[in-house]
Parts: sequence; C-alpha cells; structure tokens
Amino acid sequence: MKAAIIGAGVIGGGWAARFLLHGWDVAIFDPSAGARSRLRTVVEAARRSLPRLYDAALPDEGGLSEAATLGEAVEGADWIQESVSEDLALKRRLYAEIPVGAGGDAPIASSTSGFKPSTLAEGFAQASRLLVCHPFNPVYLLPLVEVVPSERTAAAIVDRAMEVLESLGMRPLRVRREIDAHIADRLLEAMWREALWLVRDGVATTGEIDAVIRYGFGPRWAQMGLFESYRIAGGDAGMRHFLAQFGPALQWPWSRLTDVPELSDELIETIARQSDEQAAGASVQELEQRRDANLVAIFRALKARDQGVGEVLNRMEARLTSQTT
Amino acid sequence: MKAAIIGAGVIGGGWAARFLLHGWDVAIFDPSAGARSRLRTVVEAARRSLPRLYDAALPDEGGLSEAATLGEAVEGADWIQESVSEDLALKRRLYAEIPVGAGGDAPIASSTSGFKPSTLAEGFAQASRLLVCHPFNPVYLLPLVEVVPSERTAAAIVDRAMEVLESLGMRPLRVRREIDAHIADRLLEAMWREALWLVRDGVATTGEIDAVIRYGFGPRWAQMGLFESYRIAGGDAGMRHFLAQFGPALQWPWSRLTDVPELSDELIETIARQSDEQAAGASVQELEQRRDANLVAIFRALKARDQGVGEVLNRMEARLTSQTT
Repeated sequence: MKAAIIGAGVIGGGWAARFLLHGWDVAIFDPSAGARSRLRTVVEAARRSLPRLYDAALPDEGGLSEAATLGEAVEGADWIQESVSEDLALKRRLYAEIPVGAGGDAPIASSTSGFKPSTLAEGFAQASRLLVCHPFNPVYLLPLVEVVPSERTAAAIVDRAMEVLESLGMRPLRVRREIDAHIADRLLEAMWREALWLVRDGVATTGEIDAVIRYGFGPRWAQMGLFESYRIAGGDAGMRHFLAQFGPALQWPWSRLTDVPELSDELIETIARQSDEQAAGASVQELEQRRDANLVAIFRALKARDQGVGEVLNRMEARLTSQTT
Repeated sequence: MKAAIIGAGVIGGGWAARFLLHGWDVAIFDPSAGARSRLRTVVEAARRSLPRLYDAALPDEGGLSEAATLGEAVEGADWIQESVSEDLALKRRLYAEIPVGAGGDAPIASSTSGFKPSTLAEGFAQASRLLVCHPFNPVYLLPLVEVVPSERTAAAIVDRAMEVLESLGMRPLRVRREIDAHIADRLLEAMWREALWLVRDGVATTGEIDAVIRYGFGPRWAQMGLFESYRIAGGDAGMRHFLAQFGPALQWPWSRLTDVPELSDELIETIARQSDEQAAGASVQELEQRRDANLVAIFRALKARDQGVGEVLNRMEARLTSQTT
C-alpha cells in the first residue's frame, strides 16, 4: 500500500510517520526548505513512542521516498493526504494538479482544520474522491480523525477512508454535518478565546491556565469527555437535573465570550513571554518528547485499567526485561 | 485537627472524604434529607481510590460526626468549608450564623464556582477570615483548588489556606484577581456553550463530542494544558509564530460564541436522551467508579513517567502481592 503525503509539516509529517509505522510505503511531496529534516524528526519521535502503545509488534516499516512532483507522489497511491497550510487557493491548485484517475479511486483527504469539504471541492473534477480527514497533533499518537464528506463525496470513498484509518490504529469519527472548523476546533476555539481574555485582563498567566487544566478538568476530560463527566456531576437525579441547575448560569455575564479579543502585539508579547517562563528553558523538542511520553503513559494506563492490571504488568515487565538484556 | 463541612452534597462530601482520609476529624452540618447516605457513598468512593495515588500509607482516618447545628459544627474547627448551592442569600445567612471567633482564626472557605469572595463577604463581620477555595469534582481525587481572597481577606488566612490544602495533597492556585467564576469555570463555560450549539444544531451528539475530547485534545490537555501544547505546535518558530498564524482565525465566523444558546426544553431533552444512550445502561455509580479508576490510572501513569517506570513497577507489584496474599 502506498500513501502520498502532500505537505510535510508537523501534520503531514505525523501522517507520514503513522503510515510508515503501519507498513505503508510513503511518498512525500513538499518542495519547501527543510522539509526533509523536519520529517526525519517527526518519524524519529513516532518510532520512539507509537510502538509503546501496542502489545504486539508493528509490521515492518514501509519505504519512504521524496517525489519531485505532485504527479509522481500520487502515482499508484492508495491514499492521498493533503496537509498544506490553510490557504484555500493553494489547496485547490494542488487538487487540480492530481491527474484524473491517479491512484485509481484512492481517497483524496485534506487535513484542513477549518474548511468545509464542499468549499475545498468547488470546481474540482474529482470531487467524489475528496473529503476532510482532520487529525490531531501529534498525529502518530492521538487517534481521533474527523472524517467529513461533502455532498459530492462518494459513499464508497467514505467507507474506504474509515477502514484505512481504523487499520492505522485511529478512531475516525464520521461527522454528521459539514460546518466550518468541524467539531473539535470549534470547541478549542471557544476555550482559546476565553483563555486569551484571561491573559489579556491579567487574571491568569499562561502557566496558571495550564495548571488549572492539568490539575482540574483536564484529567476528567481525557478519560470521559464533557457530557459524561457532567452526567456524573448531576448524580442520581441525572442529566436533566444537572442541565436545569446549570441552565440559568448560561445567562450570567461570566465570560467575555460575546466579544472577540483583539490579538494585539502587546497581547502576543505577553503570551509569548509567559510561555517562555513556563517552559523554563526546555526546548520544543524536549517538550515534545515529554508530551509523547505522557500520552503513551496515559493511553497505556487507561488500557491497563480496561484489561485488568495484572496482565499488563506482566507484559510491561517482559518488555522491560527484554530491553535491559 | 478538625474540619467543619457545611453542606454535604457531591462537593462537600468530597471535601469531607479528603479531610478524613488525611487524618482530620470532620463535623458535618447538612440538614437536608439523605445527606448521611450520600456522604457515606462519597467517603466509600474516596477510600477505594485516593490511597492508590500514594506510595506510602495515609494517616489513620479521622472521626466523622454529624452536627445538629452550624454552631456545633464550627466549634473548635481549624477549617470551615461551605459547599451549599449557588444561592448568595443562603451563603450569607450561613456565614452570619458562624459565632465570632468560633474556630479561632480558622479560614472560612467557600466552594463557590461563581461568586467573587468580595460579593460573599458583603456585610459579613468576619470578612478577614473568608475566602474562596473552589475545588473540582471528584474533590477527593482532583488536586486543583482555586484560592481567591477578597481585599478584606487577611494575608495570614490565605497563607494558612495554602498550607492546609497542600497538606491534603492538593494543588492550590492563588488566583491573582477576583472575577466571577474565577478561572476554570470561565474556560469550562466557554466550551460548554459551544458544545450546546453543536448538539442543538445537530452537528454532533453528546457521545460524539465526548469522543472528540477523549481521543483528540483531552489527553493533550490532561498532561500539558493549552498553552504549552500550542507552544509545541508552533515548533521551533515558537509561540509568537504560532500566535501570528492562529490570530486571523479568531476573526473568522467559526463559532457561535457571540450568541448565548437558549437552553430550551427541547434542547434539554435532546441532551438528556443522548446522554442516556451514551451511558448504555451504566448507573451513575458505575460511571463514577469508572471515572475514579481512570483518574487514578492517569495520575499514577504520569507519576510513573516522572519517576522512571522500573521503580514504580516494583511498588505496584509489591502492592498487588500484598493484596492477593
């Protein structure tokens, strides 16, 4: 199987790594400077962390090649993944360069976090193959993919996309209705705006907001999400009771949500400075490794809980023993 | 040491459990029906899960008593925690019932998620002892406490509060400025509103939104928060670069944030029904146990990563052995 990866930044590189480590051959098309070394870094990070999520060994890695042209990359591909920047004209131009029938009827998937598939597909001759498959950074570890077809996407393409993504160890979610920014980024954007207000108004620093999330509701959400957590908060009286209680608060002037914060130079400086302090000298690579190790630890822990701790302890021990001998 | 717990619902009960399991005597004042049995359930849940966060044994449990009056509960208390419902008049009435000097100069802490401490303290003779200590459900497991003094709160009371909360294994965050809903609930409220829109507009079900959080950004936040995750996303170019990229999107009409959703009967029914489907017959108690076991697993996993896995494996094994023999 061959995946064509168009655009190899953080997201495209993450896709490349996930395909490679699941045994696919990968052809990259990214003419930008430094693409090759960035890609190498992402693939190395994936090699360090992804196999630790599995009890069984992954298949042999596929082969990685760099294509000189987009046409070369997509030739004979079973999956085409576009992850260039959020520039609608650029994306449309690249789709138009895909020769009709290249890769047979392989899905043409966009990593866009913002655009609707029908917007991407305007004027595109192969619209029946195009859909949004929006992943989450780091793509090689986080399983969610928002799968959003347009009305012109063929049903068989959506089915095929779900099947391929599951085979890559991912959790594809078929989104019911296309809207700008799909589901996750709407939620993220809501919280992000409020966080910007809190920093701008001097209520909290970036580090304090991160602490609130890490030691407060973050661990609740990581394992259960928003609604199921609230279901518990409602107690025996249930979700209706909880909503009835919580309802009036929605009308209180609690948040600044009804305004959009201006991302002034001053606010950018404040956030960047606080973020520097928070990192305490750790490089982005160090933070990245810390994040990946934490994610692996969380996913393994949740799995261990599901399977019963004893069995997993045995496997962890066996693995540790094999690593130290 | 003695803690007086005024109001023993989910939050008050969680406080009671945390104090008890850290060796404090606890006096409860809650005249509502069923308070006693609800409290027993929370304390049992805490006994099952909290000790698993620690490598060393916790101190012997303190004694639990039920006070017939508020005055009896606060008599000789070293900490007074009020966790009644978000009813300003009720809270103020209860504070006024605390005899001047009862419990010497013990902090009088409110669990309010919404009110500012200066609002709570209006007209209160002992305002120098009053502050907000807002915890997160389940209080016996989640470590964050937002500590918010008013201008009238004595500095020594704030210091004492920080010290006591740390001794209970918590992570008190001293909030810089009092605002309605402090920090966490402003963030939560922002996301909650957007989630309500998504359900109302039929874009996603409650279960799908929870999946998006659990398999997407939730695990990222649980271990690193919002800003540090974005710092990594910015790559070597750093936070300024990331913000500059992300900035324009703030102005896009992505979210429905500029409106407040109406929590109509129809929307309440939709959410409650979807939430029922999502729970698939699990009772709130079962969900609660699942949540607690998951939280313990996540916290232990992150700790294990910090300490090196080998050492922790040894301790886990020893614990398992001692449990099965």
